[in-house]
Amino acid sequence: MNKNLTHAAILNLESRKRTALVNSLSGFKSLNLIGSISKTGNTNLAIFNSVFHLGANPPLMGFIIRPDSVERHTLQNIMGTGYYTINHVNESIHEKAHQTAARYPSDVSEFDAVKLTSEFTNSFIAPYVKESTIKIGLQFKERIDITLNGTSIIIGELQQLYFPEKCWKDDGYLDIEKAGTIAGSSLDGYHRTALINRYSYAKPDKKLEII
Amino acid sequence: MNKNLTHAAILNLESRKRTALVNSLSGFKSLNLIGSISKTGNTNLAIFNSVFHLGANPPLMGFIIRPDSVERHTLQNIMGTGYYTINHVNESIHEKAHQTAARYPSDVSEFDAVKLTSEFTNSFIAPYVKESTIKIGLQFKERIDITLNGTSIIIGELQQLYFPEKCWKDDGYLDIEKAGTIAGSSLDGYHRTALINRYSYAKPDKKLEII
Repeated sequence: MNKNLTHAAILNLESRKRTALVNSLSGFKSLNLIGSISKTGNTNLAIFNSVFHLGANPPLMGFIIRPDSVERHTLQNIMGTGYYTINHVNESIHEKAHQTAARYPSDVSEFDAVKLTSEFTNSFIAPYVKESTIKIGLQFKERIDITLNGTSIIIGELQQLYFPEKCWKDDGYLDIEKAGTIAGSSLDGYHRTALINRYSYAKPDKKLEII
Repeated sequence: MNKNLTHAAILNLESRKRTALVNSLSGFKSLNLIGSISKTGNTNLAIFNSVFHLGANPPLMGFIIRPDSVERHTLQNIMGTGYYTINHVNESIHEKAHQTAARYPSDVSEFDAVKLTSEFTNSFIAPYVKESTIKIGLQFKERIDITLNGTSIIIGELQQLYFPEKCWKDDGYLDIEKAGTIAGSSLDGYHRTALINRYSYAKPDKKLEII
């Protein structure tokens, strides 16, 4: 049976139920740990399921942040230092990654609280997650405040990139499944993946090829 | 072996290779078909891997669009009528979904070209995809132009929602895996998923529970 909910029915749902439902509707989500550091040297780590690709030239990535939430330390650090890291969540660290969402006191680093290892390389000021296999160092570029609901979009440009060489295909595709990256659903679902296929560039009147 | 690429090394990659690589870096992606209709009644359907959750109250979703690309018809239609649909891609339609990215002449509807069925329900002006199991009707709310790279973010509010009732949990979580929704990687990877676990809300000094 198909269920139909109208705008009014969605608004009438109990708040947590509405949040879980609406969070399910975009489809599968990226799962990343964002590492940052305050101007006084306190590291911070938080899981985000909203990192998205914005463009390849220049290489830009974005994510959504709720400034009035536990995520505010990440925002303060990024605005303070101008740099942050994005680290893919893999299966072996996914429970620790989920735990970073807890509201720890501001003098506690989530790296310590959940037992993940901060890693500083190539003079980059923000901490990477050692246990992550795909890690990106970014420079803050733009903050866009969404007046509709008080969230913000943070856009950064890639400065450093680390990944397992065996996962990189000749055509540029990085096999994130092989690297152990997992996918998210709603607020709390964690999923491993299985490749169905990759397909050739779509053209009118040309049959797709599996690549 | 780990590979390290600097900002300069990424910029120096051959253009298609850079695009495939940078598109891999956000992690797994949502896969959705966006249905729209022109003011003169021509339907349009296009695959997007950038739909994201923006907020639950009000219920808002966003996606990224490249106005100078094949995606421009979707943008014109949304700006023209104010309404559009987001339809989850499932395994049984994923090849047809990929094919919607081809650059068809403007008088050709992708619904016809790839053999997916347009569906009009509850007086909603924009077409849904009949073969999709989770379908959302949205009203356009805001367009944000990103000057950094010429892309735009389109934000809409949920007006109608259709999903299989058996996939809806009591706590509001919609089991999109059970509904057949799949995940994307880079520009052309299609993946089925397998749930690892869902976890309880994270709190300091409290062990996570599987829910």
